[in-house]
Amino acid sequence: MDDIALRLGIGDLCAAYADCIDDDRLEEWPDFFAGDCRYLVTDRESHQAGLRHGVIYCASRGMLIDRVTTLRRVLMFEAHRYRHVLGPVRLDRVADGVAEARSNFIACRIMHDGETSLFATGRYLDRIDVSRTPFRFFERAVVLDSRKIDTLLVIPL
Amino acid sequence: MDDIALRLGIGDLCAAYADCIDDDRLEEWPDFFAGDCRYLVTDRESHQAGLRHGVIYCASRGMLIDRVTTLRRVLMFEAHRYRHVLGPVRLDRVADGVAEARSNFIACRIMHDGETSLFATGRYLDRIDVSRTPFRFFERAVVLDSRKIDTLLVIPL
Amino acid sequence: MDDIALRLGIGDLCAAYADCIDDDRLEEWPDFFAGDCRYLVTDRESHQAGLRHGVIYCASRGMLIDRVTTLRRVLMFEAHRYRHVLGPVRLDRVADGVAEARSNFIACRIMHDGETSLFATGRYLDRIDVSRTPFRFFERAVVLDSRKIDTLLVIPL
Repeated sequence: MDDIALRLGIGDLCAAYADCIDDDRLEEWPDFFAGDCRYLVTDRESHQAGLRHGVIYCASRGMLIDRVTTLRRVLMFEAHRYRHVLGPVRLDRVADGVAEARSNFIACRIMHDGETSLFATGRYLDRIDVSRTPFRFFERAVVLDSRKIDTLLVIPL
Repeated sequence: MDDIALRLGIGDLCAAYADCIDDDRLEEWPDFFAGDCRYLVTDRESHQAGLRHGVIYCASRGMLIDRVTTLRRVLMFEAHRYRHVLGPVRLDRVADGVAEARSNFIACRIMHDGETSLFATGRYLDRIDVSRTPFRFFERAVVLDSRKIDTLLVIPL
Repeated sequence: MDDIALRLGIGDLCAAYADCIDDDRLEEWPDFFAGDCRYLVTDRESHQAGLRHGVIYCASRGMLIDRVTTLRRVLMFEAHRYRHVLGPVRLDRVADGVAEARSNFIACRIMHDGETSLFATGRYLDRIDVSRTPFRFFERAVVLDSRKIDTLLVIPL
């Protein structure tokens, strides 16, 4: 696969991921990850300090599935959606079928009554299995710019 | 036309469209559409309910031209501009010279006094004539995330 | 260099530039410019009026370096960061090894306590040396949509 096709494929993966969440198709969200994966939401300072956990932490696709189940069945929260707008994807490195990429995002939050606000900004740091299609995340770290992580962080970013 | 050229062309169309509006060159706005076209601004819930109309609805390029004329000559509103920031375009399907694509946006509104706010977020759902250049919209549905459609929605999105 | 490689290269330059600022690696910021360059931050109305200066104005890479030194050693300001989200880059013209491009941005500002707000929106107007790699800016004009330029505009955009 040439460089341009690889970039387009990674861009499509990131865009499809955001659409899946924004469309509230959370049951499909774990499918964006490899079985053996890591997903976490953390903040910039914790990330720079080398802390490996976060506000949300899942160490396998099974944990992602559990998270969605919990979110659907157990958690009580006011209904809301996100709208992600993604900046361009930067491809840092490709080796042995694994691509390392980064991209920035703004996530707005739309409450049930239509109230819209700037919810979170940050960066995705990704390790992606590009050895087969469809591409899948081995690791996706969501590094938030602010430590003020809203207590409403229920839906993944 | 190969896949990459098609994607670049559609991306350019969407970017040029947003710049046209943000630059207040509204007289050029109808030129982004085919003569026989459909443009509407609606909200997510109405769209999901299958409602085919919206807060703004135009069923031909002539209606788009009328809208701009009305906006320039008749409507009284406080001067403002938008700034669109577009996420990546996803190409859903291409068949018989028609491409179906989607992209997400944030539109900020800048009032005459410089006051800037998050105005709207949402998704463009497009059907594009790619059988000739320049590409033109057969249909552009602007699906807003929020029902709170500001009474100041005068300028198209 | 073909058209697609050129576009990708310019997109990468713009994304790397924003990351450099957002990561607070300001000492590397002048390296994005040619030695003989121009960088300015202005507003839309001043730009349209043909004014060639701005709130920030640097006419060489040396002035960019001075600016960073001053910012680090002298200026007193409350610690903050930006998060840029960039829209697609439009390539206007390429001739004699110089590309003219434009792109839109939203910059959010994250204060030291995590408070996040919409800080600025606007457009980059660029003249880029594409005759050699890495690409470098001959000129980057940051045209803000609002005249309300915050007194906290210390860090470049």
